[in-house]
Amino acid sequence: MKFDEAYSGNVFIGSHPHYEDSKVVLYGMPMDWTVSYRPGSRFGPARIREVSIGLEEYSPYLDRELEEVKYFDAGDIPLPFGNPQRSIELIEEYISGLLKDNKFPLGMGGEHLVSWPVMKAMYKKYPDLAIIHMDAHTDLRTQYEGEALSHSTPIRKIADLIGPENVYSFGIRSGMKEEFQWAKENGMYIAKFEVLEPLKEILPKLAGRAVYVTIDIDVLDPAHAPGTGTVDCGGITSKELLASIHEIARSKVNVVGGDLVEVAPIYDSSEQTANTASKLIREMLLGWVK
Amino acid sequence: MKFDEAYSGNVFIGSHPHYEDSKVVLYGMPMDWTVSYRPGSRFGPARIREVSIGLEEYSPYLDRELEEVKYFDAGDIPLPFGNPQRSIELIEEYISGLLKDNKFPLGMGGEHLVSWPVMKAMYKKYPDLAIIHMDAHTDLRTQYEGEALSHSTPIRKIADLIGPENVYSFGIRSGMKEEFQWAKENGMYIAKFEVLEPLKEILPKLAGRAVYVTIDIDVLDPAHAPGTGTVDCGGITSKELLASIHEIARSKVNVVGGDLVEVAPIYDSSEQTANTASKLIREMLLGWVK
Amino acid sequence: MKFDEAYSGNVFIGSHPHYEDSKVVLYGMPMDWTVSYRPGSRFGPARIREVSIGLEEYSPYLDRELEEVKYFDAGDIPLPFGNPQRSIELIEEYISGLLKDNKFPLGMGGEHLVSWPVMKAMYKKYPDLAIIHMDAHTDLRTQYEGEALSHSTPIRKIADLIGPENVYSFGIRSGMKEEFQWAKENGMYIAKFEVLEPLKEILPKLAGRAVYVTIDIDVLDPAHAPGTGTVDCGGITSKELLASIHEIARSKVNVVGGDLVEVAPIYDSSEQTANTASKLIREMLLGWVK
Amino acid sequence: MKFDEAYSGNVFIGSHPHYEDSKVVLYGMPMDWTVSYRPGSRFGPARIREVSIGLEEYSPYLDRELEEVKYFDAGDIPLPFGNPQRSIELIEEYISGLLKDNKFPLGMGGEHLVSWPVMKAMYKKYPDLAIIHMDAHTDLRTQYEGEALSHSTPIRKIADLIGPENVYSFGIRSGMKEEFQWAKENGMYIAKFEVLEPLKEILPKLAGRAVYVTIDIDVLDPAHAPGTGTVDCGGITSKELLASIHEIARSKVNVVGGDLVEVAPIYDSSEQTANTASKLIREMLLGWVK
Amino acid sequence: MKFDEAYSGNVFIGSHPHYEDSKVVLYGMPMDWTVSYRPGSRFGPARIREVSIGLEEYSPYLDRELEEVKYFDAGDIPLPFGNPQRSIELIEEYISGLLKDNKFPLGMGGEHLVSWPVMKAMYKKYPDLAIIHMDAHTDLRTQYEGEALSHSTPIRKIADLIGPENVYSFGIRSGMKEEFQWAKENGMYIAKFEVLEPLKEILPKLAGRAVYVTIDIDVLDPAHAPGTGTVDCGGITSKELLASIHEIARSKVNVVGGDLVEVAPIYDSSEQTANTASKLIREMLLGWVK
Amino acid sequence: MKFDEAYSGNVFIGSHPHYEDSKVVLYGMPMDWTVSYRPGSRFGPARIREVSIGLEEYSPYLDRELEEVKYFDAGDIPLPFGNPQRSIELIEEYISGLLKDNKFPLGMGGEHLVSWPVMKAMYKKYPDLAIIHMDAHTDLRTQYEGEALSHSTPIRKIADLIGPENVYSFGIRSGMKEEFQWAKENGMYIAKFEVLEPLKEILPKLAGRAVYVTIDIDVLDPAHAPGTGTVDCGGITSKELLASIHEIARSKVNVVGGDLVEVAPIYDSSEQTANTASKLIREMLLGWVK
Repeated sequence: MKFDEAYSGNVFIGSHPHYEDSKVVLYGMPMDWTVSYRPGSRFGPARIREVSIGLEEYSPYLDRELEEVKYFDAGDIPLPFGNPQRSIELIEEYISGLLKDNKFPLGMGGEHLVSWPVMKAMYKKYPDLAIIHMDAHTDLRTQYEGEALSHSTPIRKIADLIGPENVYSFGIRSGMKEEFQWAKENGMYIAKFEVLEPLKEILPKLAGRAVYVTIDIDVLDPAHAPGTGTVDCGGITSKELLASIHEIARSKVNVVGGDLVEVAPIYDSSEQTANTASKLIREMLLGWVK
Repeated sequence: MKFDEAYSGNVFIGSHPHYEDSKVVLYGMPMDWTVSYRPGSRFGPARIREVSIGLEEYSPYLDRELEEVKYFDAGDIPLPFGNPQRSIELIEEYISGLLKDNKFPLGMGGEHLVSWPVMKAMYKKYPDLAIIHMDAHTDLRTQYEGEALSHSTPIRKIADLIGPENVYSFGIRSGMKEEFQWAKENGMYIAKFEVLEPLKEILPKLAGRAVYVTIDIDVLDPAHAPGTGTVDCGGITSKELLASIHEIARSKVNVVGGDLVEVAPIYDSSEQTANTASKLIREMLLGWVK
Repeated sequence: MKFDEAYSGNVFIGSHPHYEDSKVVLYGMPMDWTVSYRPGSRFGPARIREVSIGLEEYSPYLDRELEEVKYFDAGDIPLPFGNPQRSIELIEEYISGLLKDNKFPLGMGGEHLVSWPVMKAMYKKYPDLAIIHMDAHTDLRTQYEGEALSHSTPIRKIADLIGPENVYSFGIRSGMKEEFQWAKENGMYIAKFEVLEPLKEILPKLAGRAVYVTIDIDVLDPAHAPGTGTVDCGGITSKELLASIHEIARSKVNVVGGDLVEVAPIYDSSEQTANTASKLIREMLLGWVK
Repeated sequence: MKFDEAYSGNVFIGSHPHYEDSKVVLYGMPMDWTVSYRPGSRFGPARIREVSIGLEEYSPYLDRELEEVKYFDAGDIPLPFGNPQRSIELIEEYISGLLKDNKFPLGMGGEHLVSWPVMKAMYKKYPDLAIIHMDAHTDLRTQYEGEALSHSTPIRKIADLIGPENVYSFGIRSGMKEEFQWAKENGMYIAKFEVLEPLKEILPKLAGRAVYVTIDIDVLDPAHAPGTGTVDCGGITSKELLASIHEIARSKVNVVGGDLVEVAPIYDSSEQTANTASKLIREMLLGWVK
Repeated sequence: MKFDEAYSGNVFIGSHPHYEDSKVVLYGMPMDWTVSYRPGSRFGPARIREVSIGLEEYSPYLDRELEEVKYFDAGDIPLPFGNPQRSIELIEEYISGLLKDNKFPLGMGGEHLVSWPVMKAMYKKYPDLAIIHMDAHTDLRTQYEGEALSHSTPIRKIADLIGPENVYSFGIRSGMKEEFQWAKENGMYIAKFEVLEPLKEILPKLAGRAVYVTIDIDVLDPAHAPGTGTVDCGGITSKELLASIHEIARSKVNVVGGDLVEVAPIYDSSEQTANTASKLIREMLLGWVK
Repeated sequence: MKFDEAYSGNVFIGSHPHYEDSKVVLYGMPMDWTVSYRPGSRFGPARIREVSIGLEEYSPYLDRELEEVKYFDAGDIPLPFGNPQRSIELIEEYISGLLKDNKFPLGMGGEHLVSWPVMKAMYKKYPDLAIIHMDAHTDLRTQYEGEALSHSTPIRKIADLIGPENVYSFGIRSGMKEEFQWAKENGMYIAKFEVLEPLKEILPKLAGRAVYVTIDIDVLDPAHAPGTGTVDCGGITSKELLASIHEIARSKVNVVGGDLVEVAPIYDSSEQTANTASKLIREMLLGWVK
């Protein structure tokens, strides 16, 4: 027995044991230090792995099995606790490493700010990159209480980086008036309240493009994801979110990476949120990695 | 610093600091002493205020911000614990005071019986008053286990006061056979199971009328509001309830007051119910107060 | 007072006090020893009874009251704890006893394996028996980790017994690839993801047939039933499940028995799952027993 | 199989199947309608039975097994929901029936008011009756918010019935000033804060006397019993409470009945309170019934 | 009715309605933004008020009633969310205001860092000030992850301000090696693990001194206070903490202010922690304000 | 970056990154398939790691820091789900591997049965091995419901292996009469109810002996460890358990391995049990590995 390989108890179900010959790397970004309302998403990735034991390895939606996609669960990126600036640097460096090795990066948050350094790394490799963003919140602030590194700012930072016209937000139902105005004035796409129907309209326009997909679990109604920091009623169902993932899978978009963020287990004693997240990860894996 | 004004930590987000120049008064009615199944709604108003910190002050549904509506969170009405008769008298007196000052009353329960004394005060000012009632339960009993002051009786009392033909109930999915029969025989309107579609039919008939709107949080499916005394599956989604509030906002009805009742925090460790209630209060404020 | 009849505190609401002149017998099967992921359904039946106190005895869906159907809550079948083989034998023997007395058997689980011995007893009495199965999972394995008596196998066993062409599964969204293939190759009906619409198609084909209906509570989305062992997002709403029960009630199918399984209270601190289950039991009673 | 005897799933572990030849009758009194702070004890008895499955039938404290004491779990007394006056009459009548049949009554609450009608029945049979009362609260009010039938009044009523000099309270750490004064002026014994040591002093004085023992679970510190209506820190440990039960068992007191009240499961998602209550019931059975 | 005074529903039980003629001011400091492990104490003060309704107004420990001490619950200090520097300035300014009016300040946290600005204000008024500190943690770091304003640093800052020889810590069971060493080398008093016995030794030495008392609820064992950010087993019981408060009350120390911090309700669904905190506040009020 | 070493997010705090030069190996045994009452301990090890982030690396009890003991968290042993026989073989093989490499094995359960294969491996290396066993339960059954591989049997199996006279049980408060008798008749040591005092007597007798220490978390009172399968009141405090670990540390016993089992996170929404377990693991590491 090789003990360095023995740590299989708490990896995502079906994880391949070796990094080298895996196509996808699954990793956690256990950071929540800029959260304004209810923290706790630092514990999200570990819990998602824990509950993945309850999943089947086959998707009847996609008629595909996990063994058809070699992926390696690399665990959580070791982040310097309480230091957003350094955390962001480490995430960017980590993703750059993955991309150099031609891995498909699939991340688990952590707060939404983690998507920002991921996109910085992605954008270097894919200069025509677009982003599909599913969320209850705009996340378009320039700062929050004076703090530019905040869970309320990542999409704005990304828009500034890749151009607002390459940002497509879906399911948005919360934000400041100024955020919606900024988006409108700068040609950024926002689909309010709904995800699936507007997505069907947008996907053909993105055909052939390199696209990163970031999903904030709070795009779901709190009924479907009570375990998150900022619950906001009026969201979509898990059925609609699954269908949206599958719609992307069946589209001609070239998905080059993705993440699922803001699972905060403490607020959900039934653990339905973590279980749902683990199924979403499975569908993202099976649907987006060809 | 004036200490009497210092109590801003636990008011509803965006509350104006002064009563005098506020248009709306928001108040709690922390009473649950006649509840038959699972009590706890006495703690509802305080929890709704607590979690309102997680709200944005802007509604993308209505394109309006809280600062456009001056409202004063007056806290909870001090009610004599365990005495329904005196509680009811105090609520009526309190609302009468608000109406004399031309305030728009917006209440948070507490059990549903609190709507009864509110309506008594409202009816004196608005003799042509109608009520829109969203609820899982008919609440049309004349008594419960021999007690006329019961959370099962308020709508019946209101119907007796303003005439059953002025009572419009929506979303009803639970009650005794006799209650449904009484409604039918007395010309009271009941839309079973649904809210939004029947509301669209009724609202034009109420155009120009003074209308009070009372929402029992259990009109929502337990998936969307587990934190209430009497959960009853088969209810509407928070999306439908939001749309119903907005439908009223866009109608020609003259909303003169409203309440949201039966939030019982102990049954919802995720606090989604209180969070949802706080968003509903925001939408009621922004949508119904012109 | 006769003390043997005194045990009315923890029976399902409205239960008739005597076995002899009751048409229906309601019983619990508190077994969960073969569960693979999250056990706890052994405590389901007791909790469903406990919370049934919150129910009205009238169904506005069916315009019928519990007093119109005489049923006897016989409590839980005493099962030898930890012994699946003997448990199964006892359940079969118990149901055979009920059928000899011409009772309509209505069961509460417990894990889904309990439906297997019930079907063995039913099949002896009704040789043309078909089964309607609502579930998130196929339950078509021949064994689980080498164990033939597993909560993953009951529908397969039933299909082997009554013929796969007499098994109709609805709402299925999880299973191994091999299970779906087996069903397809053997003429078993599976409606993936949906229940109500496919049911409307199938029911006319079953007109006049003796049908047993087994409902795994996890056919509901976790939002509607967090209190179960294996939550799996993307499920149906409680509204759709109620409508499906009512669709069967209005059909020409001859329902001869049924069960509701897999309620595991520990995972739902709001108790919405048990409350929902108690309402489903009421609707099954009022809808299926003529 | 005789179905009237089939209800063994939800009885207290080791219950004898027949009333007639049992020495002890165990019964629930699922009433909490006069509770002032946090209700829910109506669900106590059912939960205590549910979790008793986790108990061993042997007590290493007393070196005695449940099979050495024949007892019959008669279930919950059917109480008219919401009617304290009639509930009290039914309890008294029920206990009188048990006493006529020479049963040892062992009750599970429900709120503490249930002990009052029990004592009325007991006192008729045992005119020299004394009571040992373990509780956090004095329960000596004459009324609560004007209501004489309140969970704050039972011990006062009992003191008025059997004479304050026959009432021995232990562990008391909460009450109004007037209650403590009344006790002092009327010769009633109150041991503040402690149970075991003062009990050791009192028991010899009660040697040979008929004694009823009532235990409010909140005599325990909330650490040991969070699942109760009115938690009050500074209480005793479960070790001290067990030792107190055993001290009574070893004394020369003639215990003629007892109860354990105020278990409210909703406030304890770990269910330690119900589990603790079930062990206390076992020790009361094994220790007090010779 | 004067509506500015109407906010009595959610104040601490027995609060006097006017600031001017109150001796004590009770206030919340709802800040937790520097917390490293599990945040949530921002919601502590509101919850403590909410549950205080379950308290008696009389202390049998001190034989004193709340009406004997006039205190005004001023609500929470409005703190700029997410800005520790400005929060600290506002707290200091607030306390200075109270002291100028000769009020006894009694605070509820919030994270422990809030005690630091309170002490700055106190020290200006009482130059011979000593502090009694009960806590599981040393809180003597100079910074945490590079941040000087951290919940791990307040006692160090206080020691630097008033001199380490005037700091008396009790119940400490967690900290870095360097923290314990610094205390030792600088003449600061630390009683490891225990509170009551070492307190009895220290109190006589502080006779006549002006003393501020700060209690971190996590000095209690997690069994007694699960609802806090950093639970750490091996703590004292609520009985010992109550006795320690009473020991101070009976001593010749001149208590000039105090606080109770780190109650984080989300981690305690039974709410025993908030209930315990409300009783501790009552005893602090009754014991320390002559 | 070497990705195989990146998995540092979910290891026990302070874990050394390499197996080879570590003295201790910490591993999980996520098995609970023979549990009779409330399962869930399969999720214990992962949760203990998760919460270890809240620990300080220094022990003020032992004046020692984690960096003084090199240990490697090897993750969970991959166990064939649902197969006790094969699980046991794999555990034995795993431990044998560790012992061959001269590692100190420190395990986290999982159910108590896991200690049995560990002891089989240990006994081969240490023929004079004794075991110190802290537990609420005897675990001396020969079978449970006919199953020899049960969480009720491990200590009996161990006694049969190493001789009952080498088994020392402490804190026992639950078991069948026959189990206590067997222990007595066969010279096995059982200290009922208490741990620390009897341990002080026994340790000198074991001086110089190779001793394995197994701690079932339920030796703690449920107040201190609600998150376990079979809670049983009347247990010891976490203070006493810590003191017992330290007593062993200061003794002349040669501790050669140990484990901490039966943490079941689902039953403890406050997570105090997992937090307590993580501190116990730290003290076991710092105290027992010289």
